[in-house]
Amino acid sequence: MMAKTARRVRLSVFLLLILLRGPLAAQAPPPEQIDVLIQGGTVLTMDGQRRVLDSGAVAIRGERIVEVGPAEALSGKYTAARTVDATGKLVMPGLINTHGHAAMVLFRGLADDQPLQDWLTKTIFPAEAKNVTEDFVRRGVRLACLEMILAGTTTFVDMYWFENAAADETAKAGLRGVLGQAVIDFPAPDNKTWPEMMKAAEAYVGKWKGHALVTPAIAPHAPYTVSLEHLKEAHALATRLDVPYVIHVAETQDEVRTIATRWGISPVAYLDQAGVMDARMVAAHCVWVNDADIRALARRQVGVAHCPQSNMKLASGTAPVPAMLAAGVTVGLGTDGAASNNDLDLLEEADTAAKLHKLIGMKADALPAKQAVEMATLGGARVIKRDKDLGSLEAGKLADLIVVRMDAPHQTPLYNVYSQLVYATKASDVESVMVQGRFLMEGRDVKTLDAASVLAGAQALRDQIRKSVAR
Amino acid sequence: MMAKTARRVRLSVFLLLILLRGPLAAQAPPPEQIDVLIQGGTVLTMDGQRRVLDSGAVAIRGERIVEVGPAEALSGKYTAARTVDATGKLVMPGLINTHGHAAMVLFRGLADDQPLQDWLTKTIFPAEAKNVTEDFVRRGVRLACLEMILAGTTTFVDMYWFENAAADETAKAGLRGVLGQAVIDFPAPDNKTWPEMMKAAEAYVGKWKGHALVTPAIAPHAPYTVSLEHLKEAHALATRLDVPYVIHVAETQDEVRTIATRWGISPVAYLDQAGVMDARMVAAHCVWVNDADIRALARRQVGVAHCPQSNMKLASGTAPVPAMLAAGVTVGLGTDGAASNNDLDLLEEADTAAKLHKLIGMKADALPAKQAVEMATLGGARVIKRDKDLGSLEAGKLADLIVVRMDAPHQTPLYNVYSQLVYATKASDVESVMVQGRFLMEGRDVKTLDAASVLAGAQALRDQIRKSVAR
Repeated sequence: MMAKTARRVRLSVFLLLILLRGPLAAQAPPPEQIDVLIQGGTVLTMDGQRRVLDSGAVAIRGERIVEVGPAEALSGKYTAARTVDATGKLVMPGLINTHGHAAMVLFRGLADDQPLQDWLTKTIFPAEAKNVTEDFVRRGVRLACLEMILAGTTTFVDMYWFENAAADETAKAGLRGVLGQAVIDFPAPDNKTWPEMMKAAEAYVGKWKGHALVTPAIAPHAPYTVSLEHLKEAHALATRLDVPYVIHVAETQDEVRTIATRWGISPVAYLDQAGVMDARMVAAHCVWVNDADIRALARRQVGVAHCPQSNMKLASGTAPVPAMLAAGVTVGLGTDGAASNNDLDLLEEADTAAKLHKLIGMKADALPAKQAVEMATLGGARVIKRDKDLGSLEAGKLADLIVVRMDAPHQTPLYNVYSQLVYATKASDVESVMVQGRFLMEGRDVKTLDAASVLAGAQALRDQIRKSVAR
Repeated sequence: MMAKTARRVRLSVFLLLILLRGPLAAQAPPPEQIDVLIQGGTVLTMDGQRRVLDSGAVAIRGERIVEVGPAEALSGKYTAARTVDATGKLVMPGLINTHGHAAMVLFRGLADDQPLQDWLTKTIFPAEAKNVTEDFVRRGVRLACLEMILAGTTTFVDMYWFENAAADETAKAGLRGVLGQAVIDFPAPDNKTWPEMMKAAEAYVGKWKGHALVTPAIAPHAPYTVSLEHLKEAHALATRLDVPYVIHVAETQDEVRTIATRWGISPVAYLDQAGVMDARMVAAHCVWVNDADIRALARRQVGVAHCPQSNMKLASGTAPVPAMLAAGVTVGLGTDGAASNNDLDLLEEADTAAKLHKLIGMKADALPAKQAVEMATLGGARVIKRDKDLGSLEAGKLADLIVVRMDAPHQTPLYNVYSQLVYATKASDVESVMVQGRFLMEGRDVKTLDAASVLAGAQALRDQIRKSVAR
């Protein structure tokens, strides 16, 4: 009886399984709905294993990356509102420009081939005094955003006047920015006295704190243009408001001499002793730093913005980047303002950095291409302490990425993507740019700015600017 | 009577003049027939007065420039078979790349971030031995010509194997070349012994001498790879055939040590004492030259090809260009082969040169933008001793010119054309390229090469090349 029952049960289960086979298979998890699937390209992830997926895909929902993996695996797993075919192209994290003065594109090429101090005091400062208004900053930032989007930049660090206007234009362009309201010990285009500057900076931060794209910051100009007391006051404000502290540090030998004469120490030691050096500092240049300075930059977790082309053009010197990296300093790349470079092309900075440090160190394996790509992406994210969200293509991170063609004559043949990116690929090869899950550019068509009106808006100021510096 | 006659004559002459006024005016010389009138753009002439004509024109008949002047003046004077409107653009002499190895584009990025001697002996020489055939050179030169046309180069100096094939492809592409058949003291891909090399070089020169676009040359590799006797023999051949003598000189400290060990003198002094240094020499690099060497280079009228990016990337050093220019040495710019740079973009070399020498000399006014433009054009023409025909836009010179857009976001606003060209303009801004009165590219459409098949032809060799150097 028991045996008969058992047989019947086994038979029933067997029949049930046969009957259920179809429905059970159909019950495999249904495809997940996502917004964008970019598939078919080579995906340079910059993730922990530095994976480069030959035929990869990036799944995006809302503002974040859902998954990065082989195209075959992802295409079955997701139903995308939009699928982008990136076959033959490179998909990689957006470039992060860690130092610049966006609005200064309007001074691009206004005065070249002058030493930094002359250039700054005889051309730039007077030109700023006569020309920089809120309208100037708006026109300049629009042009800078247009140029940066076309060159594959998705995040930029800024330091300038009327930064509220810069933030507004950056947000409208859809770019991500760490945007520092500059403060300095002389009357500036936007604020005339230190108390006014502090008040304006606080109001600016209050207005933008928590914005999805804009991280407001306080930006004291430099150790030689802002007093010790004011450097500390600005730092206290940045700390209280919990925002980055953006500053020029040890850019020239002149600065080193000035600080040494006043205080008997190096600019970095001076800032460290002042107590303003910590993880919220984004220090541009750091050209003239000694071994103790480098250790301090590492210990204090300062983010360093290396601007090789600006430092070359202004004859400032060469930051000891390989030594900084070896000591554990976080280093990103920056273009600086277009008045001193003269463009906002971060791939060119990567190329120049990789070549320059080989020359300076007389070592052809110094700063390999892969390291230069890291500085332009994940390194930049670390400089602004946003590497949990930015700098690589990984599930959970914000969807800031670019699609780059890799089949132009100057990119052919292709043996190694890192090498090709750094040494041969140009800004003009960047085809599409996404920030926060939104395409700002597709097929080199910038969607968030009207190029013709941005260019006309900039050209309209040219004659007035030129006249203002005629001698 | 006399007075009355005189009055009558005066009256008759007066009436005659009135009657003839119309016909005389109509007898102004009729418009001259020309082939192309490029008008409306800013014409950067690089002529003796370095004129920059704001609304200029260039009149071209056949292969030569007939006149350069204000657009208004020229448009009435000539009837052109074709008028090209260059309004808003820059019209300037084509770029002259004074050093490279065109076919090596096929090794672009094959091995990077290695010291020159390792790179040369462990990767490049073995890769050449296993891959370089006449077919390889044809495919490589086609790709290089495509890349150079797209980047605004109209003349290039080359040194490689199977140069007959290189010459053939260059002529087909419509580019102008000083193309050196390389000779060296070890078996090469094309010829295995020195006598074979000499014989092949002479046959090559015989075939191409007098060609409108190709200037054949003899190219001994370097003082450390070609014996004294052979350097002299190659020079005697170049002299007898009256062609340029293209050679690498003083590129690395290794080379300096090698020559010093063998001969106790510098590479330049060695070549000078060998009697091979004269106006037909195009000497690439000249990185490690002392003051006496510089004086010798000037005295012997050697043309120097400065290759800043290659010298940086291979950690070779920095040629003392400002000192060479001050001493009267003729200096042009070169990209070197794409295996060591990794592209054929002469505007980038101008940018790098202008910035690099500011840094090395710690002088922000070293090598101003205008001087960098001169090196890329007229300086290059002087290096190859073709400045009577090339390097500037002047009546009587060959019509080798480029049209460059100047209104891209990264070129806006425009204050100074020299600055904008060197520090902000990119290869991708070059719109049209004319060599010898013939448009090779218009609106970025290359007319003399089928881009798709050139790219496919290069890619087809990639896997084989990669496998050949796998270790």
